[in-house]
Amino acid sequence: MYDKNNIFAKILRGEAPCVKLYEDTKTFAFMDIMPQVPGHSLVIPKCDAENILDLPADYAAATIAAVQKLAAAVKQATDAPGVMVAQLNGSAAGQTVFHIHFHILPRHQGLELKFHARAPEPIANLEPLAEKIRSRL
Amino acid sequence: MYDKNNIFAKILRGEAPCVKLYEDTKTFAFMDIMPQVPGHSLVIPKCDAENILDLPADYAAATIAAVQKLAAAVKQATDAPGVMVAQLNGSAAGQTVFHIHFHILPRHQGLELKFHARAPEPIANLEPLAEKIRSRL
Repeated sequence: MYDKNNIFAKILRGEAPCVKLYEDTKTFAFMDIMPQVPGHSLVIPKCDAENILDLPADYAAATIAAVQKLAAAVKQATDAPGVMVAQLNGSAAGQTVFHIHFHILPRHQGLELKFHARAPEPIANLEPLAEKIRSRL
Repeated sequence: MYDKNNIFAKILRGEAPCVKLYEDTKTFAFMDIMPQVPGHSLVIPKCDAENILDLPADYAAATIAAVQKLAAAVKQATDAPGVMVAQLNGSAAGQTVFHIHFHILPRHQGLELKFHARAPEPIANLEPLAEKIRSRL
């Protein structure tokens, strides 16, 4: 059961702040506030879907298209040789916000991802890289 | 530059074996031969694309639709409370086969994924769970 008060629903309604990267009729992208790596971004659909299992087909298609756009921009903006797309469904898989989201993570060889020790980053610290990503879109 | 001799291209052409799970006009799914967890499956588009950056939009839409189908079936077949979708681009991100692929990984709370110590599994060992996944599609 989708909870309309999750933080991403609030961001979509403009009730919570975010560092926005991109928006179209069906999708929205912003910086992860607890980045696992600099440039860690999120793409979400503008519909009430908890995970990959209840995402309508038209939103799935729009979301993967936005993921493609953002992956290219994030990779360029961070000069990363690689980029990882991850999408977690269910708390057993590590999902913590129950509005479906695709993680975009720039990857450099040998750099381990800190999946556990995550800490919130002040929004002001995220803005310079966000601006660089936007300029690549 | 897409290499037509990568192992997934050979699987698509029927030149290499696989434990097939699903196929439609634009996509193909099969069991990962080096599973990180039982039920580890892969979804690939039937086009020459190396990664998320060069995947045509119609194949991206078809592939994410197939990922949705497979994620549901894998989750049910493995009785997993969670499921992770991962898609790696570039060797720095851990990509080892340069035909774009989406990993589908059933997840159980507290079970660590072994991203590194991967070993090939005899095809016969994959078949029983593959049959269970197919029956949920």
